[in-house]
Amino acid sequence: MKFEVQGLDSGSKARAGRLQTDHGAIETPIFMPVGTAGTVKAVTQQSLADDIKAEIILGNTYHLYLRPGLNILHEAGGLHRFMNWSRPILTDSGGYQVYSLSGNRKIEESGVHFRSHIDGSRHFFSPENVMDIQRSIGADIVMAFDECTPWPCEYSYAVESMEMTHRWLKRCIERFDATEGRYGYHQSLFPIVQGSTFRDLRVKSAEFIASQHREGNAIGGLSVGEPAEDMYEMTELVCSILPSDKPRYLMGVGTPANILESIALGVDMFDCVMPTRNARNGMLFTSRGIINIRNKKWENEFSPIDPAGITFVDSYYTLAYLRHLFIANEILALQIASVHNLGFYLWLVRQAREHILAGNFHSWKNSMIPQLMSRL
Amino acid sequence: MKFEVQGLDSGSKARAGRLQTDHGAIETPIFMPVGTAGTVKAVTQQSLADDIKAEIILGNTYHLYLRPGLNILHEAGGLHRFMNWSRPILTDSGGYQVYSLSGNRKIEESGVHFRSHIDGSRHFFSPENVMDIQRSIGADIVMAFDECTPWPCEYSYAVESMEMTHRWLKRCIERFDATEGRYGYHQSLFPIVQGSTFRDLRVKSAEFIASQHREGNAIGGLSVGEPAEDMYEMTELVCSILPSDKPRYLMGVGTPANILESIALGVDMFDCVMPTRNARNGMLFTSRGIINIRNKKWENEFSPIDPAGITFVDSYYTLAYLRHLFIANEILALQIASVHNLGFYLWLVRQAREHILAGNFHSWKNSMIPQLMSRL
Repeated sequence: MKFEVQGLDSGSKARAGRLQTDHGAIETPIFMPVGTAGTVKAVTQQSLADDIKAEIILGNTYHLYLRPGLNILHEAGGLHRFMNWSRPILTDSGGYQVYSLSGNRKIEESGVHFRSHIDGSRHFFSPENVMDIQRSIGADIVMAFDECTPWPCEYSYAVESMEMTHRWLKRCIERFDATEGRYGYHQSLFPIVQGSTFRDLRVKSAEFIASQHREGNAIGGLSVGEPAEDMYEMTELVCSILPSDKPRYLMGVGTPANILESIALGVDMFDCVMPTRNARNGMLFTSRGIINIRNKKWENEFSPIDPAGITFVDSYYTLAYLRHLFIANEILALQIASVHNLGFYLWLVRQAREHILAGNFHSWKNSMIPQLMSRL
Repeated sequence: MKFEVQGLDSGSKARAGRLQTDHGAIETPIFMPVGTAGTVKAVTQQSLADDIKAEIILGNTYHLYLRPGLNILHEAGGLHRFMNWSRPILTDSGGYQVYSLSGNRKIEESGVHFRSHIDGSRHFFSPENVMDIQRSIGADIVMAFDECTPWPCEYSYAVESMEMTHRWLKRCIERFDATEGRYGYHQSLFPIVQGSTFRDLRVKSAEFIASQHREGNAIGGLSVGEPAEDMYEMTELVCSILPSDKPRYLMGVGTPANILESIALGVDMFDCVMPTRNARNGMLFTSRGIINIRNKKWENEFSPIDPAGITFVDSYYTLAYLRHLFIANEILALQIASVHNLGFYLWLVRQAREHILAGNFHSWKNSMIPQLMSRL
């Protein structure tokens, strides 16, 4: 995997880059649609590539491990072939989902015992087997197995958790480097910075992560309920330590504003369920602001969903029609809103990239944010 | 509207035709996907036109009247513009849905009082206002307001009901012919033959319907639970009476076998929720037979959904992947299965048409049916 910084913004830390994988190149900054169980919910693979112009998607190790399971993924020749997606895939480590199971999991030094949310069956994730699982899934980018601390978090717990995450990282690296991809293409392992919202821990963790010299680095444990200022403060701090010649991935972020602000701090990669989950709840992110499409005010608004006309749905369907579909609980509502929101997110990062390359990202970002976050 | 019979099968009553509307031509025999509330469930309009190759779709007057309602449809410029579908649309009269409300409706000579299934609000459908409603929706083909008798049905009830349907038809015609389309294109009214499964009533009703000299005629009250033999017997009888220079529409039919058998009896048009509803339940109609995609046997079957490759989903996705999507309750499962099943139905009627024009429909049909109805 090769990463090249192609341009730096003059007024911020934003950078434009290009990440080359065996499944093609990714132009950064990039947003990765979340394809939990081998599908980006309500979106066909064709639409994901052609309409939304996704360059990389994210799969969830926890979900894929439970369903369809590793045997089937391996028999299929990996997730790319199973779901017929030929562009890059990143998989999370399953850590975040497992910790979200709260009552149904037990964390210990060796790993995490948990019960399936589907059938209550017992399972165990360790740094070693999570590397093996992601080898079987066949992600281009494999994430280290970490503990994502909740927010707020006691300092003492944050220290212990971070230190265990670092020990787990050593085990992840050892296993990952001792094994090979199963499908003939290169896989990269990204370690994850933790440390909650404590500056000293974030510094320590970022330095440790940077010292591993992997092909890219991630920032975890943010966007878990902390104030946005804390998120930006930690992101800025960590970005100042992580090497500038490697891609930086801020996990689970966020709103359009969060993404633009974090790009300004030096982040290159993002993922979030927000564009798809909120789409299914009737919240549209558009070039003019945020729309609650269930609102009665759109009932007879026969104008396009988004005048920017980013994806075909924006100009093909009207706000009134989309509202009708939501009110009538029609599946097509979810399809249109999901394509729209993802198309918008990908458009936003492409725009960001253009403005970085033009050197005027900072002022563009500041003019865009109030508009993007206004409620229409 | 102009209908032209272009070819007759040598071994059956099957015919190939062409029905010209102001929204384009329909090549018959044709299957009309059901777009209940202004959307064919889980299918985009683009896919309906380009992948499925639907030439005409059906809208449900009852559902559209309740949601989005006539004001919005009229403001939008009719259903075609509201949903952005430029090909022909047929609307049912709402009668079938209203009668399905059983406890929540009261039929009398003037019309039907009913309560909305959505909010319990009170409404009234009459032959006159149902014509007005379909004028507002803007269907190319408007269906008469009839009573669909249940099966089994007492002879005395079937007589009374049929006679009321005939009186209602007179009122429909009077109102329809006294009004004009609201959107500048031609609309046609199709009357409906009733008479349950009684030969004498079907003869009487078909003669009455034929005597109205409308632009097309429909057969109602079948596919409501009666044995298939009764359905075919009534269809054959009615087709022998309805004029051969007008299209014949068998309402609510049916399985692939039902459709091929009814084409052989002289039917030109079909609609049914089966391909879409069954798709959402995981039943696929394919060129090789019927698949219950939830069955474990497809778990690691990495072959295409249908080797005939009728729509892009057939070759793009595998049986194993589609099964996974169903088991994981993913929306994409419904999208793929719906596109597949509708694409298959449209392929089937195109194949039928080709074999009629080639004069070998009868033998082709007999060879196809066992294959199409086999369980894989």
